[in-house]
Amino acid sequence: MSRILILGAGRSATVLIDYLLEDAKKNDYTVVVGDMSKELAEEKIAGRPNGQAIQLNVTNEEQLDSEIKKSDVVVSLLPAKFHYLAAVKCVKHKVDMVTASYVSPEIRALDEDAKKAGIIMLQEMGVDPGIDHMSAMKLIHEIQEKGGEISSFKSFTGGLVAPQYDNNPWGYKFTWNPMNVVIAGKAGAKFIRNGWYKYIPYHNMFRRLETHTVLDYGEFEAYPNRDSLSYREAYGLENIPTIFRGTFRKVGFCEAWDMLVQLGLTENAFEIDVPENMTYRDFTNTFLPYNRTDSVEKKVANLLGVDIDSVEMKKLDWLGIFDLKTVPVSKGTPAQILLELLKEKWDLEEGDKDMIVMQHLIDYTLDGKEHKVKSSMVCIGDDQIRTSMAKTVGLPAAIGARMVLNKKFKSKGVVIPTIKEVYTPILEELKSFGIDFVEEEEVFEFTENVK
Amino acid sequence: MSRILILGAGRSATVLIDYLLEDAKKNDYTVVVGDMSKELAEEKIAGRPNGQAIQLNVTNEEQLDSEIKKSDVVVSLLPAKFHYLAAVKCVKHKVDMVTASYVSPEIRALDEDAKKAGIIMLQEMGVDPGIDHMSAMKLIHEIQEKGGEISSFKSFTGGLVAPQYDNNPWGYKFTWNPMNVVIAGKAGAKFIRNGWYKYIPYHNMFRRLETHTVLDYGEFEAYPNRDSLSYREAYGLENIPTIFRGTFRKVGFCEAWDMLVQLGLTENAFEIDVPENMTYRDFTNTFLPYNRTDSVEKKVANLLGVDIDSVEMKKLDWLGIFDLKTVPVSKGTPAQILLELLKEKWDLEEGDKDMIVMQHLIDYTLDGKEHKVKSSMVCIGDDQIRTSMAKTVGLPAAIGARMVLNKKFKSKGVVIPTIKEVYTPILEELKSFGIDFVEEEEVFEFTENVK
Repeated sequence: MSRILILGAGRSATVLIDYLLEDAKKNDYTVVVGDMSKELAEEKIAGRPNGQAIQLNVTNEEQLDSEIKKSDVVVSLLPAKFHYLAAVKCVKHKVDMVTASYVSPEIRALDEDAKKAGIIMLQEMGVDPGIDHMSAMKLIHEIQEKGGEISSFKSFTGGLVAPQYDNNPWGYKFTWNPMNVVIAGKAGAKFIRNGWYKYIPYHNMFRRLETHTVLDYGEFEAYPNRDSLSYREAYGLENIPTIFRGTFRKVGFCEAWDMLVQLGLTENAFEIDVPENMTYRDFTNTFLPYNRTDSVEKKVANLLGVDIDSVEMKKLDWLGIFDLKTVPVSKGTPAQILLELLKEKWDLEEGDKDMIVMQHLIDYTLDGKEHKVKSSMVCIGDDQIRTSMAKTVGLPAAIGARMVLNKKFKSKGVVIPTIKEVYTPILEELKSFGIDFVEEEEVFEFTENVK
Repeated sequence: MSRILILGAGRSATVLIDYLLEDAKKNDYTVVVGDMSKELAEEKIAGRPNGQAIQLNVTNEEQLDSEIKKSDVVVSLLPAKFHYLAAVKCVKHKVDMVTASYVSPEIRALDEDAKKAGIIMLQEMGVDPGIDHMSAMKLIHEIQEKGGEISSFKSFTGGLVAPQYDNNPWGYKFTWNPMNVVIAGKAGAKFIRNGWYKYIPYHNMFRRLETHTVLDYGEFEAYPNRDSLSYREAYGLENIPTIFRGTFRKVGFCEAWDMLVQLGLTENAFEIDVPENMTYRDFTNTFLPYNRTDSVEKKVANLLGVDIDSVEMKKLDWLGIFDLKTVPVSKGTPAQILLELLKEKWDLEEGDKDMIVMQHLIDYTLDGKEHKVKSSMVCIGDDQIRTSMAKTVGLPAAIGARMVLNKKFKSKGVVIPTIKEVYTPILEELKSFGIDFVEEEEVFEFTENVK
């Protein structure tokens, strides 16, 4: 009997385990879920047929070796740094592998060995990276096949709260790892616009925005992602004059978030010893120039050059940065201290549903005409277990794992879903789960020579 | 015959070697200079009696062990990360040690072992750290001994070009490690002011300035140093309401430097692949929002909110960031690319002399009166070998090494020159080299209760 081994039973595993257990029942194979906590693995399997829970510590090399040796496919949902441990064993025992994480340089270096072993190591099979690759490459290939020349590629993804549950002045709630949101953008961003390279330092990140409309969901603004340039090679768009990837937020979020950045509250480079009874008001004050008479609010407004009664100041006030509430930790970076406050304000409430918004914008010329394609996808969570994030991360990996088990792919080595044999069937199947892209296209007469 | 081993014969070693060879001739001991390059060590000794040059690789454990075993004192002028290798051997063979670098956590952890071995490991014996500790502690102890209560301690040091050679719009030239100047402030800063903790993120670093007059040398402005708070413990000022350490620049420097920071040209977190024939004008443009018609100068002025004809824009222009000159490297962080330009503009010219400016400002109350003490030191280089930096770094370490050899200190273990038995004789001897502090004191009637 075939055996799929899932490493890690955390949040992102739920939907994947459900999918594979359902399929295993029909097609008679075993789904083994290994986690540090056997209870957690058991909970996720919930007594369903074909499932088996084991206690597994991936740093126990012997155990990892023997479990992988017995398997036909390994799906690693571990924190990214652990994938390599499993990958080496997969190569050794000629076992196919699937992950939802970015290909690390170490994993990339296994490509030749994986090919020699005759296995596929299917990576970046989540939402971002994952569904973004698949849906973008489907568009790009279609345009290229009909002879279009692409001049601009832009792509945006955002993890947000669904509109019905969007009830705070920021239009935002945490739907995934909160700390990643607080320190987003720290490494700066690189992209190219009309042939001009553009680099953005962290402190300007939330000021260099693009705004786009997505279906009937209104306007979203995007701040730039870390390295858009590397996508030129990944997507076969080496000489494209414009490439830009960004993160979507509701309009107005970035301008207010930028105030926290400018104040220094998102700093993560140094730790603060929090004095006893320090309030969030004191915490905010530590970033402001000393002034004997001005209120903390007045000093913030002065430093940021905004009116004390402005919408932005109201957003900061709503967060609680002026409150006399005691900081609940004794030590931490400003980002960690701010996070404690944000978690109280931005955590999903009972019944809230999350939402993934993705959009690609491509400009191309064909037969002397200028085309603009917009491809948009909005996926709303079913509940707080089968969230939109869990579905869009778990389903591509699950479908990928099933197809790998059934030897559906010819490709060997380290593969990401930018190739047709992977993205076509997976995008098709994702539709049945409501993960579907809507394409809109406009065509313009080419006016450049007329002017 | 006694033996002092000097590890490293680089720039900072020259004055130290001169001092010790002079003393060795009188008092008959050997000064061994070990460097990766034996030629460099020989050049620094220049055939003088009592000197001996050896080729020495500190990562060759066996050689390091045998050389340290033969010595009575080891002076390490190696890059800071190598001190520990020597320190461990010093403890093992009960050999005293001197460095001019900050005590690392690893070295600090050797304190007990060093005490057991009966040796002194004298650290932070340069200018900053070094002369700053000595001169500050002399003042602090004097005030405390007469019963004064210190309410504010501020201390500033700057490595600058001497006024006669200050002939560019920035009032600045490189006198030490240029890259450290370009990335200065990256880790943020912490201090305390009137009992309020203050934290400053990098992007606000060059906007939160203090300005002070030093003797007849005019006005200097100071941006905050990394962690002033840690000096409370080091200086025995645990409950002081105000402590601030800063770096001195000529007035006007920081405001213009802040423009480079705001643009992103000092970023060091990501690398750029430099396209062929990219000019510095293009480089600057990569940090600016795309605009089809505005000049690079106009976009910079707009982004920074300054007038295109302002003094600040003239300073940027003088640096060459708008020039059509090709970037001379094929890859690097923005900071590294900027550095190439700055080195052309800010390198010392032939005949230029450097200058170290140091100032402590202490407020204290005594007998109901408020006192303000200002202690200032300006040291100008003799030439480009015996620079002010080389003298102020090399002489404290050299005097310290001589005194350690002659068993002048009772203290054992890891020691920094905040203690009287170290700073008193060394400050006294530094005077004979023209490194002397001028104290000015003002006394005010205490008016707080009168208001």
